[in-house]
Amino acid sequence: MAKDDKKKAAKTKAEKAEKKLRKAAKKSAKAAKPVTAAKAPPVVSPLAPKSFPDLPIVEGVEFASAAAGVKYQGRTDVMLARMAPGTAIAGVFTRSSTRAASILDCQAKLSGSQDQSQGAAIIVNSGNANAFTGRNGQEAVDRVTGAVAEALGMPSSRVFSSSTGVIGEPLPAERITAVISETAARLDPAGAAGAAQAIMTTDTFAKGSGAVVQGDGGPIHIAGIAKGSGMIAPDMATMLVYIFTDAKISADNLQKLLSKQVDETFNAITVDSDTSTSDALILAATGRSPAAELRDMRSKPARDFAAALNGVMLDLAQQVVRDGEGATKFVEVRVTGAETPADAHKVAMSIANSPLVKTAIAGEDANWGRVVMAVGKSGAKADRDRLTIRFGDMVLAENGWRAPSYDEGKASAYMKRDSLLIGVDLGLGKASRTVWTCDLTHRYIDINADYRS
Amino acid sequence: MAKDDKKKAAKTKAEKAEKKLRKAAKKSAKAAKPVTAAKAPPVVSPLAPKSFPDLPIVEGVEFASAAAGVKYQGRTDVMLARMAPGTAIAGVFTRSSTRAASILDCQAKLSGSQDQSQGAAIIVNSGNANAFTGRNGQEAVDRVTGAVAEALGMPSSRVFSSSTGVIGEPLPAERITAVISETAARLDPAGAAGAAQAIMTTDTFAKGSGAVVQGDGGPIHIAGIAKGSGMIAPDMATMLVYIFTDAKISADNLQKLLSKQVDETFNAITVDSDTSTSDALILAATGRSPAAELRDMRSKPARDFAAALNGVMLDLAQQVVRDGEGATKFVEVRVTGAETPADAHKVAMSIANSPLVKTAIAGEDANWGRVVMAVGKSGAKADRDRLTIRFGDMVLAENGWRAPSYDEGKASAYMKRDSLLIGVDLGLGKASRTVWTCDLTHRYIDINADYRS
Repeated sequence: MAKDDKKKAAKTKAEKAEKKLRKAAKKSAKAAKPVTAAKAPPVVSPLAPKSFPDLPIVEGVEFASAAAGVKYQGRTDVMLARMAPGTAIAGVFTRSSTRAASILDCQAKLSGSQDQSQGAAIIVNSGNANAFTGRNGQEAVDRVTGAVAEALGMPSSRVFSSSTGVIGEPLPAERITAVISETAARLDPAGAAGAAQAIMTTDTFAKGSGAVVQGDGGPIHIAGIAKGSGMIAPDMATMLVYIFTDAKISADNLQKLLSKQVDETFNAITVDSDTSTSDALILAATGRSPAAELRDMRSKPARDFAAALNGVMLDLAQQVVRDGEGATKFVEVRVTGAETPADAHKVAMSIANSPLVKTAIAGEDANWGRVVMAVGKSGAKADRDRLTIRFGDMVLAENGWRAPSYDEGKASAYMKRDSLLIGVDLGLGKASRTVWTCDLTHRYIDINADYRS
Repeated sequence: MAKDDKKKAAKTKAEKAEKKLRKAAKKSAKAAKPVTAAKAPPVVSPLAPKSFPDLPIVEGVEFASAAAGVKYQGRTDVMLARMAPGTAIAGVFTRSSTRAASILDCQAKLSGSQDQSQGAAIIVNSGNANAFTGRNGQEAVDRVTGAVAEALGMPSSRVFSSSTGVIGEPLPAERITAVISETAARLDPAGAAGAAQAIMTTDTFAKGSGAVVQGDGGPIHIAGIAKGSGMIAPDMATMLVYIFTDAKISADNLQKLLSKQVDETFNAITVDSDTSTSDALILAATGRSPAAELRDMRSKPARDFAAALNGVMLDLAQQVVRDGEGATKFVEVRVTGAETPADAHKVAMSIANSPLVKTAIAGEDANWGRVVMAVGKSGAKADRDRLTIRFGDMVLAENGWRAPSYDEGKASAYMKRDSLLIGVDLGLGKASRTVWTCDLTHRYIDINADYRS
């Protein structure tokens, strides 16, 4: 289509003006990144627990940490745990198809029957995930676990390792092996807090949780530590979690218990829907408690132990959400009335992972329409006219429409809280699912737009 | 565990200091939201095309727009299109289980055979989605389509409506019906640009695309308009898109063509993984072209028409991504070597929807490790040691490790471009999938933390 010169000139002027606007837009979108906030050292999450808990001492477990300079300077980045002979190990790991070398190594070592007579050890570094590092990845694992085996006098088949940090960079194993013997010399039953510090990456606080339950003949102690803040959507696995107990329990029973409990704890949280290459949960039972062995898992002591373990796992999982990158709100999403458990899970995760739901929460906007959207896109069976949506105790929507009792002022006031509950009843069946997540704020982008440098 | 008073006092002091830190953290996380940027009117996306295209006139189609004040003030928010008698209509719609009243209405009207003799009309409002509005939702659709039917002298079964904007608020239908007759009086074959303006919500530019192909006996014209910026992850449907052609083609052939082509155009884009309740694409063919009817869809004119339609659809879909909320980068994700098409799609969408990949792109960080992570979590079959990752023409990773040719400086320089290509070859089979997305920036949060107010 031909244009006359006048039109062309007008267009050129308009184009120039628009070009200017675009330049300004780009500059402004980038400027929106608050440089000072990005450069400032991470401050502790506003949702953090008041302090690191006083963890119970678990007989047969010692910890030490060290500053190996894997990547970070001026902080510890290696933790070592030694477990006494007789210790049973259980583990759950990420199902990512690009999982890290250390994960593959742990899975191989746990695949057969365990020689518990030699004890066990866990060695963890932060700052480098040793993931997608090819053949060299396994060699680095062998060097690190070999050095620990030598220092502690146990076979390397009993040394389990994890690495967390950047993906795709070769792990400088020599920096870790260089500090193993001096670290081993400082092993201490009271060292769990230091260990929890050493495994942090973008975490803003160290995570620990413990419990003491009465067994048959004496107390059983449980102490766990965890790290995790971003790349959190464990789906069938976890982030880095180490839980220790002095319970007497077979490796088989321990693994069964762990596999069952991970579903409603670590598999029920999400920060950003991104699943790590390095998620691992290792549970060690030293058998040093005076309490009798937990053989019948339906007995009262076994059920008490299971409940306490569940409490520790849930506490650690929720602490990971409370330290979700940039989080200012802790959100429980409770789905009821689904036709199947799979549907309940789909709806809960669709809400918990929706960027539009999460930004509305960050903005303290009671935008329940976005919850409707997330239910709709989940792929689960849902009927608009049977759906009920609650924020806390308030019914916002029911019977396919805004509830008559809906009060924008009350809903807005509710959104100002630190901890929120989003309840969705699908009105179709009896299946339910509760998951935990956090909001999506500017700080998430600050942290992740510049993580490698 | 008992603590002595001294320890308690120390803890109280530490707690006070920490409380102060938390308060500061919370304030800072909120402050990170640049108030001026959030309050400023939306500037045009830096990725926008240079200008709205000169769309071809499609014989038998007229447009008009109006400012009805549905929600916005000082701008148009209603568009009306009238199609001449003989027009065939095809449509694809969201599969959300909480889809809007207008979607259900369109689907019902397109479910039987069409009475093309009466022509057809499309009425669209922005500012309110009329979704999750119960029985009143359908009544509002009936009132609006009824008023259009009356004004244009056609049965309301031939009037198709869409609504876009906030979910869950009752649609003020009376504001729309009040402007129908005066809008109908201004219908104009050259009104497409105004129509594209009227349907915008958080869009920063109006979206149009057109084509002219040579049919058997004369030219066939295609003109399309679209809106969409956030809540974009159409999966089996689209956002709001209206495409018009004067091709002679049966409603059946038109629908088949549309359903086939939507997969590699609108179903291949994502901004934020959130699927709207209101996605709709309506394709109208007036049959007014002098070219012969497209009967055999394998004939050259039919294949030319299909290719041109595909081009228009892809252009509109990519414009939606270019206007992705807060976007500063346009990203093509090209997955090859997958075992199945489903696997290729899973991997491509897992990368395109990953907040960690998208924030790295926003930060111009060549963090290919996050691409590895996204492949791993996708659920598709992948083998670490066969994976190849490219940014543009650069091979960053291959054979399960960083490529020997990897050059951080070159990779970083590449990331500064406006348009990026992420290539992933799984090395397992022949299936491939290309999708388009944008980065995740502070502006996305600005826009969505405060959308309702």
